[in-house]
Amino acid sequence: MATEDLPALSDLTGRRATRREFLVKSSILGALGPLGLAACGADESERKPGGSAASNVGVGPDAGPATAVRNADSKLDTGGHANIHQATAVPTKAPSTTFRRFDPALPPVARERTTRLQFTAQEHPIRISDDTVISAWTFGGDTPGPVVHVKQGDTVEFTLANEGSIPHSMDFHAAQIDPKVAFRSVMPGQPVSYTFRARFPGAFLYHCGTSPVLMHIGSGMVGAVIVDPPSPLPAAKEFVLVESEYYLGAAKGGVLPFDYTKMLATLPDYVVFNGRPSQYMTAPIKVKVGDRVRFYVVNAGPTHPCNFHVVGEQFDTVYLGAPPDLPLRGIQTFGVAPGGGLVFEMLADVPGEFVFVNHGFGHGQKGAIGILSVEA
Amino acid sequence: MATEDLPALSDLTGRRATRREFLVKSSILGALGPLGLAACGADESERKPGGSAASNVGVGPDAGPATAVRNADSKLDTGGHANIHQATAVPTKAPSTTFRRFDPALPPVARERTTRLQFTAQEHPIRISDDTVISAWTFGGDTPGPVVHVKQGDTVEFTLANEGSIPHSMDFHAAQIDPKVAFRSVMPGQPVSYTFRARFPGAFLYHCGTSPVLMHIGSGMVGAVIVDPPSPLPAAKEFVLVESEYYLGAAKGGVLPFDYTKMLATLPDYVVFNGRPSQYMTAPIKVKVGDRVRFYVVNAGPTHPCNFHVVGEQFDTVYLGAPPDLPLRGIQTFGVAPGGGLVFEMLADVPGEFVFVNHGFGHGQKGAIGILSVEA
Amino acid sequence: MATEDLPALSDLTGRRATRREFLVKSSILGALGPLGLAACGADESERKPGGSAASNVGVGPDAGPATAVRNADSKLDTGGHANIHQATAVPTKAPSTTFRRFDPALPPVARERTTRLQFTAQEHPIRISDDTVISAWTFGGDTPGPVVHVKQGDTVEFTLANEGSIPHSMDFHAAQIDPKVAFRSVMPGQPVSYTFRARFPGAFLYHCGTSPVLMHIGSGMVGAVIVDPPSPLPAAKEFVLVESEYYLGAAKGGVLPFDYTKMLATLPDYVVFNGRPSQYMTAPIKVKVGDRVRFYVVNAGPTHPCNFHVVGEQFDTVYLGAPPDLPLRGIQTFGVAPGGGLVFEMLADVPGEFVFVNHGFGHGQKGAIGILSVEA
Repeated sequence: MATEDLPALSDLTGRRATRREFLVKSSILGALGPLGLAACGADESERKPGGSAASNVGVGPDAGPATAVRNADSKLDTGGHANIHQATAVPTKAPSTTFRRFDPALPPVARERTTRLQFTAQEHPIRISDDTVISAWTFGGDTPGPVVHVKQGDTVEFTLANEGSIPHSMDFHAAQIDPKVAFRSVMPGQPVSYTFRARFPGAFLYHCGTSPVLMHIGSGMVGAVIVDPPSPLPAAKEFVLVESEYYLGAAKGGVLPFDYTKMLATLPDYVVFNGRPSQYMTAPIKVKVGDRVRFYVVNAGPTHPCNFHVVGEQFDTVYLGAPPDLPLRGIQTFGVAPGGGLVFEMLADVPGEFVFVNHGFGHGQKGAIGILSVEA
Repeated sequence: MATEDLPALSDLTGRRATRREFLVKSSILGALGPLGLAACGADESERKPGGSAASNVGVGPDAGPATAVRNADSKLDTGGHANIHQATAVPTKAPSTTFRRFDPALPPVARERTTRLQFTAQEHPIRISDDTVISAWTFGGDTPGPVVHVKQGDTVEFTLANEGSIPHSMDFHAAQIDPKVAFRSVMPGQPVSYTFRARFPGAFLYHCGTSPVLMHIGSGMVGAVIVDPPSPLPAAKEFVLVESEYYLGAAKGGVLPFDYTKMLATLPDYVVFNGRPSQYMTAPIKVKVGDRVRFYVVNAGPTHPCNFHVVGEQFDTVYLGAPPDLPLRGIQTFGVAPGGGLVFEMLADVPGEFVFVNHGFGHGQKGAIGILSVEA
Repeated sequence: MATEDLPALSDLTGRRATRREFLVKSSILGALGPLGLAACGADESERKPGGSAASNVGVGPDAGPATAVRNADSKLDTGGHANIHQATAVPTKAPSTTFRRFDPALPPVARERTTRLQFTAQEHPIRISDDTVISAWTFGGDTPGPVVHVKQGDTVEFTLANEGSIPHSMDFHAAQIDPKVAFRSVMPGQPVSYTFRARFPGAFLYHCGTSPVLMHIGSGMVGAVIVDPPSPLPAAKEFVLVESEYYLGAAKGGVLPFDYTKMLATLPDYVVFNGRPSQYMTAPIKVKVGDRVRFYVVNAGPTHPCNFHVVGEQFDTVYLGAPPDLPLRGIQTFGVAPGGGLVFEMLADVPGEFVFVNHGFGHGQKGAIGILSVEA
């Protein structure tokens, strides 16, 4: 978060004007039409879509012609001492967009002890369901942004390029660093770079911290950094779920803008895991009987807790401190604070279809729901 | 929760129509008139009302002519290897209803290591105060449903009969079982049966998981399963408090229907412990000086945390993990997530009248309040 | 909380009438005009303003002519066996009021093992920013009230004088005592006295418990008691942050009244640390590099959790139980329940300006934000 003072409510007029400009720009994108669920159900294919490392940034390349994500991860093994996560080059004025399931699989941990991240702040339309496109603010063209996976003690060299139309910034909850300098807002066209070390293991949020933070978090500029402890946790199938609330205004040119006034009214239209309402209902997360399953649940909010629960299951472990510290046993539901993250584990010893939800149903029912399919 | 997809908001019209049909049916019940607080203050009598085991289902028989609960618990000692909890046979179209305090005492733990539960889903009017009757959806004619009390490792053989007018189901948070099969919705007249083992000790919610879950939880289909650890917790006077939020529409024929739109707006009209606003203000929970007091607080929600607090006291123990794991000491207030349950303990070494509340007063003040009377 | 029943919603008419009388009285104070930020930025001076012990009551004397706080703390060293905290004698009908930063520094722990507190319930206008004056209900003329700092096992002898126009009371979460007697409401002009022993260490809320509690907490009658454990926690710079939500009606005579209906609607206008929105943005909390920093975060609510977070930092310790019990490590954000308090620690080993916030931004952005300045 930048250290500049947050605006009084009376400042919003100006802020809205800025946002409206963006909306005007977004609306130029025109009628997007229902392009269908291109990747819907393509559970496995999306994880290795033309390259082994796509899952490493948490966003697979899209089959659509206009949203080709450049996959810089091919450099992974040849990049010397550093991993490079690059989520850039998505044309801001994509003429259309297709639905794409967000891969929930935790990408492999960085091989090197320094990870280079090159993120781009982009205002970008995203199809979140068959009939809904939102004009999101993003890191790399999607919300949430790329999942970053490092090890305690690792160094992260980060650069943000601002390809948007307003100031943006990056606030890593995994970092201990002077935010006035590192998390400062940068104007369009200006980059900001900094380096931090991941001191504690856990599931950490990152987000744009530009004022008003509520608007920047609420418009999609969020993501997760997973930091492994020195001694690995028990072997498990690992998934990342970033919960976000969406507050949307009236459609313009077929695209729904985010609505700051609604954010302040705290009644979301959607509450989603990994950016799309109920995406894992139609394309479940799949594991095998006997697997240990670990969910890294990061709650971007901006406002409500994520009361995480798996129907038909109990967590044998919720790490309340830095994993593996303070394991809670036998937990049905535990609240993840907005701006927080917790690690949930269960043993998938029963086959079946287990629905995971935010059990605060007044909000959670608006899309924070998916299926964990445990196959025999 | 059934694995069928939850409805989009646009589906609500249909859902509401279904609910309206029920309301129409409920409204046939007519003007119920204020029948007064029949059992109010009858603290002890209600716990052994014509039979020793009534408290074992958490609902005493009602003195009123039209709501005679058949007490199957007389079979408790003669039922062979199993306890039988039966909460059925309440006529759905009761012409009137009387107020009845919900006994908060934890019923004795099942004597056998297999417990048979025969629940009935029923749409049923409930007088929650002198002047208010709600048209609830229930397990067994009351909200919350019967308190179930078993031991870690126990087997529970469960059957649900659906005597309602719409599909219902049962989701036990104490179970590890394929919810697609076990927690499936059944049509009126159709039963569903399944068996589970209680793996972890603690205070667990059960609820109808039929879509929209928000509506089924919010309309009263909730209750508690208390699972004892193998080694007993310290001897204590034990009570169960299930917190629920009520979102009510305009009265029809003197009966207030639940209102799904209000549930989505998340501003409850009442927040209640064990189904009735402030019922333990007029008829307090009573213990003696020197008693250890244990509250099993289960938060049905559907939306808000229950920030449990006892005025004038501090909890010497809040078990954050499966009891007796991770005891917190010296706690003033702790939040129970919606869909969660926690165990709170205090030593009643000071005589007096101690008010227990949900200290999130904007919601809690709407009825989530009662008195623990500590008598010399 | 008094043991009298809380009012039904229908009682509010009467309650509001009472409140309106107060507002009428408050509005006599007239147009206050923007008197500017008298103490703004005067970080150090305010802590020793004409006397060494002012910080011991958490409120420094104001330079303004009309709000002279009598500093009884000069008796501290000569008062025999007891500390005396006195926060009285603020004229209720101050003709004007100036802005004053609330000193967040934890006052020194009481030297004697009995602390005498003499509080006065007062309805009092408070300038919370350059252009906003609220007609608060207070303990001692300010909100939050004086910070009390004692040691586990200490005795507190408390007296409340009611100089307000309606009943008030005092509910200490640090006390184990019969609330029906000790926390009873007293009429204007009548005092109430009681003695309690602080049994557990931690950060505890105190508040007026007069019905409706939501109104009395929500109107400013809150504060913190910090209880040290027998063995001191690691040496640190210690600060107290009491979070409150403000729900305000239309200005009358330049003064904003609290609005009970808005409290029930749970959408605050401001969320503040220590009574003023964003006060520590312009006048940061200052520490030096290498300091351990300890925040005692008490959440008065009345409704929402305080999801405490420091931008650019991670807490190496959050004491979840009575300090030093159950330390969580490596925490980015943790929710403090309304009516609760937690102790957060971090090592300030990085210089910079670290913004602390309630990361539930839909509410937190309304003023629950400040700067921790770590100077080289």
